[in-house]
Amino acid sequence: MSFNTFGKIFRFTTWGESHGPAIGVVVDGCPPKINLSEKDIQTELNKRRPGQSKFVTQRKEKDLVHILSGVFEGRTTGTPISLIIYNEDAKSRDYETIKDKFRPGHADFTYFKKYGIRDYRGGGRQSARETASRVAAGAVAKIVLKTLLGRSFSIIGGVTQIGPLMIDHNNWDDKQINKNNFFCPDKTSVATWEEFLLDIRKQGNSCGAVIELRAKGIPVGLGAPIYSKLDQDIASALMSINAVKGVNIGAGMNAAALTGDKNSDEIKSSKGKIKFRTNNAGGILGGISSGQDIVASFAVKPTSSILMARETINTKGKNTKISVRGRHDPCVGIRAVPIGEAMLACVLLDHYLMHRAQCG
Amino acid sequence: MSFNTFGKIFRFTTWGESHGPAIGVVVDGCPPKINLSEKDIQTELNKRRPGQSKFVTQRKEKDLVHILSGVFEGRTTGTPISLIIYNEDAKSRDYETIKDKFRPGHADFTYFKKYGIRDYRGGGRQSARETASRVAAGAVAKIVLKTLLGRSFSIIGGVTQIGPLMIDHNNWDDKQINKNNFFCPDKTSVATWEEFLLDIRKQGNSCGAVIELRAKGIPVGLGAPIYSKLDQDIASALMSINAVKGVNIGAGMNAAALTGDKNSDEIKSSKGKIKFRTNNAGGILGGISSGQDIVASFAVKPTSSILMARETINTKGKNTKISVRGRHDPCVGIRAVPIGEAMLACVLLDHYLMHRAQCG
Amino acid sequence: MSFNTFGKIFRFTTWGESHGPAIGVVVDGCPPKINLSEKDIQTELNKRRPGQSKFVTQRKEKDLVHILSGVFEGRTTGTPISLIIYNEDAKSRDYETIKDKFRPGHADFTYFKKYGIRDYRGGGRQSARETASRVAAGAVAKIVLKTLLGRSFSIIGGVTQIGPLMIDHNNWDDKQINKNNFFCPDKTSVATWEEFLLDIRKQGNSCGAVIELRAKGIPVGLGAPIYSKLDQDIASALMSINAVKGVNIGAGMNAAALTGDKNSDEIKSSKGKIKFRTNNAGGILGGISSGQDIVASFAVKPTSSILMARETINTKGKNTKISVRGRHDPCVGIRAVPIGEAMLACVLLDHYLMHRAQCG
Amino acid sequence: MSFNTFGKIFRFTTWGESHGPAIGVVVDGCPPKINLSEKDIQTELNKRRPGQSKFVTQRKEKDLVHILSGVFEGRTTGTPISLIIYNEDAKSRDYETIKDKFRPGHADFTYFKKYGIRDYRGGGRQSARETASRVAAGAVAKIVLKTLLGRSFSIIGGVTQIGPLMIDHNNWDDKQINKNNFFCPDKTSVATWEEFLLDIRKQGNSCGAVIELRAKGIPVGLGAPIYSKLDQDIASALMSINAVKGVNIGAGMNAAALTGDKNSDEIKSSKGKIKFRTNNAGGILGGISSGQDIVASFAVKPTSSILMARETINTKGKNTKISVRGRHDPCVGIRAVPIGEAMLACVLLDHYLMHRAQCG
Repeated sequence: MSFNTFGKIFRFTTWGESHGPAIGVVVDGCPPKINLSEKDIQTELNKRRPGQSKFVTQRKEKDLVHILSGVFEGRTTGTPISLIIYNEDAKSRDYETIKDKFRPGHADFTYFKKYGIRDYRGGGRQSARETASRVAAGAVAKIVLKTLLGRSFSIIGGVTQIGPLMIDHNNWDDKQINKNNFFCPDKTSVATWEEFLLDIRKQGNSCGAVIELRAKGIPVGLGAPIYSKLDQDIASALMSINAVKGVNIGAGMNAAALTGDKNSDEIKSSKGKIKFRTNNAGGILGGISSGQDIVASFAVKPTSSILMARETINTKGKNTKISVRGRHDPCVGIRAVPIGEAMLACVLLDHYLMHRAQCG
Repeated sequence: MSFNTFGKIFRFTTWGESHGPAIGVVVDGCPPKINLSEKDIQTELNKRRPGQSKFVTQRKEKDLVHILSGVFEGRTTGTPISLIIYNEDAKSRDYETIKDKFRPGHADFTYFKKYGIRDYRGGGRQSARETASRVAAGAVAKIVLKTLLGRSFSIIGGVTQIGPLMIDHNNWDDKQINKNNFFCPDKTSVATWEEFLLDIRKQGNSCGAVIELRAKGIPVGLGAPIYSKLDQDIASALMSINAVKGVNIGAGMNAAALTGDKNSDEIKSSKGKIKFRTNNAGGILGGISSGQDIVASFAVKPTSSILMARETINTKGKNTKISVRGRHDPCVGIRAVPIGEAMLACVLLDHYLMHRAQCG
Repeated sequence: MSFNTFGKIFRFTTWGESHGPAIGVVVDGCPPKINLSEKDIQTELNKRRPGQSKFVTQRKEKDLVHILSGVFEGRTTGTPISLIIYNEDAKSRDYETIKDKFRPGHADFTYFKKYGIRDYRGGGRQSARETASRVAAGAVAKIVLKTLLGRSFSIIGGVTQIGPLMIDHNNWDDKQINKNNFFCPDKTSVATWEEFLLDIRKQGNSCGAVIELRAKGIPVGLGAPIYSKLDQDIASALMSINAVKGVNIGAGMNAAALTGDKNSDEIKSSKGKIKFRTNNAGGILGGISSGQDIVASFAVKPTSSILMARETINTKGKNTKISVRGRHDPCVGIRAVPIGEAMLACVLLDHYLMHRAQCG
Repeated sequence: MSFNTFGKIFRFTTWGESHGPAIGVVVDGCPPKINLSEKDIQTELNKRRPGQSKFVTQRKEKDLVHILSGVFEGRTTGTPISLIIYNEDAKSRDYETIKDKFRPGHADFTYFKKYGIRDYRGGGRQSARETASRVAAGAVAKIVLKTLLGRSFSIIGGVTQIGPLMIDHNNWDDKQINKNNFFCPDKTSVATWEEFLLDIRKQGNSCGAVIELRAKGIPVGLGAPIYSKLDQDIASALMSINAVKGVNIGAGMNAAALTGDKNSDEIKSSKGKIKFRTNNAGGILGGISSGQDIVASFAVKPTSSILMARETINTKGKNTKISVRGRHDPCVGIRAVPIGEAMLACVLLDHYLMHRAQCG
């Protein structure tokens, strides 16, 4: 059982609501003697921070992280690392007009039905603000992985689709990702996306996105079949992110359309090194990493808080209409890139430790 | 940690290899005083059983299940239910020719690299034979859910795509599913699929498939955010099935291409009943069931054991070719239908019990 | 796996070091709609607070608790309750003289050997200060239990032995417990204990204690055999408290000396009510509560930080002597009473929820 | 959650009832490539087997264990090891006379109240027969520990008290333990115990016992504070054994009566080796192993199934008397020795793997 905890050995527990005094995360199971500073974590948080372009929410938060425990004289001690981010720009008044109505496509409805209580301020616990805690935990995981796996290790994510507009995978260039407002690896897509999103915003509408993650330098053997498969835990991690509706590993859903001879990645040995001709498996066979790059992607649905009027009911069950004002992302998927990276980092570290436990 | 255990309160642990004396599952956390017989479980197992048509493996197994514990005078006692299926038709000799080679796209390679040991007989623990244990556990879950939720509850799955050939969802008819060899809900697809698969088999090739699952009669409120979301656990459950590479909830990956006004399901109250206009959410909002049907789908990659010659390496790292003879499914996705149903049943029951724990 | 998390459904995760900026706890799995305020929690914390008499450490801490999440308009929301206590009186300089030496009987040595790093300030994570977090979590559990079980429910703890001096159990009087400095239920023991402890303190020595806990109003049926037995989880909970070396349920270790006819508690029905003649079982049979009072006791070893000089080694492995100055409890067992109560409350609530999950 | 599963990384799940077709255990998380045979496990089971002297139950069971999975060509594969023991001598008729009555001190009552159903045949799941599964799992753990830790590792247990009769600890001699019917390490106690037990048996009564366990060759650093302390998990493991009511680590409950200077074990370095002068800590400081021998003891209450007539109620709540005929142990504590050893072995291996996970 782990309502608000993720992971098996490297575990993190997040807490906090959008409009409470703070949010935070407790990271447990971190190996000792790893160099770790607030600055390291802040760097990752800054990627997720809202208000950085007109394509994301205008909520202004510095999202400054503080380490409250688990680090002594700049190194992890092996005890829980408590990280806190104080909330600053929490305008509850934005939510007064919708406090008795359920936003279609939003967890407002189900939280109220489940718990019989509603923290209407910014969605309370459902708020995507919770994902800052994940990014903080993921920052720790990334640093530990770099320390343990060395320089060959990296995780990078990019947006590959906004609305119906996909990138050309042949154009993927890691270096482009941080050069535009969309974490887009294909520079030929940027202008089109910009135009499309400006239009969406003008309509008071929103749109979905697909994010692709790639982890390099992952050793063969991570993954614990049958029910802690590496791909299973990646699917779990990514599907736990707000608004995610689909997860692919390697060829993913497209694997269905392939034949066996096209799909299975042939193996070649060359000068003592094992190479695969293709990577439809996304670096995972039978739930265990094969030494290839880990490739996973996920779809984020359009933001449900939109300006356009929609039919809904209120908390008393009466029919009504809703139109959500305030500072919302027209495409929440963009900011999901660092969150996806963080979750993937946590899963990989967790499995690294699990593998070390069982197989030495 | 749970290498071979799935679930949180309703938990099952599977064990056994393809070519060992038996396989089995221990089901724990089952509510007491539920009527349960071997026959109930056998009915589900029979759906998965191989050798039922020319489109699935010709391995002949009766897959007879025995209850070894946890049931007294026809009712569950609340203690572990141990189920065993003896292996019958285990021809290890089929595997002699490939015992030193890795099948491309198969877990042969990663198991060997991870554990340093290889049970080459039919894949050992990686074998899809393990899924019989899941179906047995799922049979128990279904019976419990029927007892707890009543007649409105049902789970049904169908194949919606074989290779590149998709059904027309408008033709979906539950009653068709058991009337053909493919669990196909659209009778207009059956002939085309048959032709396609005969051709695939003739080539010594294989193909992928997509399976869609629907659960009806699920109460609102199941799902434990943030890290035991109902959709997260469904994704984990389905991705744990052999050969699955993608999982969708509701609109799934297609949600990326939608706009907010198209994607979010409007709510209407009518005569005291809450209705949603659409079900892009797949019955889950913020990780919690909304009372709509739960809809999930998953892609199964083509079988990696094929007759066509493929390049690979052997256990000594030398380049070689492999061609797998023997009794393999040309489209392993077909037999994934009862497995998907079983996993979904287990997740739903688990969340029902979890919800009852926290919210009474 | 749960290095710093306790519990199964009602779970809490503690974090923080003796001399860091703060300590805290995240309480997860709490039922929704329970009235909860900081004041409720503070009341329990005040019982554990140091500096309240000359028989406990003179460290001065107000131990003010703040609720950072999980409570909305005075009621729990079902989401994680984050509680924080800022550290105030953290004199690291007290520890400079012993920073390179290991205190005999202290976890200094093992933490250093395990993690290869030492937070010498007040023991860092090993510090009994962590137990404030437990008391805070336990305060939440108590309030939930009172809400769910009603007025018949209570948990009370008392010190029954200090050094070699035991109370007379026939004199047990709940009302006495808060009338003296020792949580002593037998008023005839107070004066002797006071004298004994003054002498111990004068010697620069310390002594052990036994604490007995009693929970009333616990329904029959809590406890999940075989490996989540109620007594097993109580033993785990109490043994996890710093310095605890023994745990008894009911007659405990003394049960060994009894014969079957003396030990087993005979059952009588009277006017439709079930009564037991004795309670050697401590209210637990086969790991499940019987409806009798739950009775458990535990032994706390003498504080290892004492003024008397002791032989030891330093971090370089050289022989040396150590004498610990500073503000230490001569009998740390006294302050273990609210901690034991807190842990027992958490276990009972956890099992209440678990029982509700499986048995409805 | 883990109703019938014990452990975190090295985990075992037991199943089966006293009078069902079989009992068994699934061992998960076992490291791969460990030599393991049925004979290895049988050796441990034979120690626990009933019917070996007149001082234990006369139930005749060969308790033959079969490995159903997880071992290939004599070595563990890293996948679940399923072990089964078929029940042979299950005389349900012995229980007919008591099927509607509750045995005082027995779990009959609480199981019935919890689950609403009663498997009266030999106690069903409550039966001590379940402990054979633990011994089998512990046998695996012992073999793995021997492989990983080498020849310096050993676990040995002995009975140190029967009824009120304690051994003289100065006489402890490992070699005596298997030379008598009581696993008694002090040969001077054997004759007295024999006389005492014959008398108990003649009365149709029963008596309790204390068992002490010692593990040698355990490296420093095992144990994961705060809530997976090594002593906490040992307490949990031992308290989970049927009829256990108290657990001590090192000095245990007796630590309460000691002063700090007597209790804390002084440390000395000699020729580069660290020595402790005493071992009141039982080899565990702050929940982490210190490198000293691990010493734990536990009390087993007298068997509750006795011939002497006792007052009780029946399943309808009516007052009645009960007198239990049949084949019961006069001192069930004797057969608890191999069970305690098994549980300790499982905890130690689990912590070894956990330590390896976090600290490499």
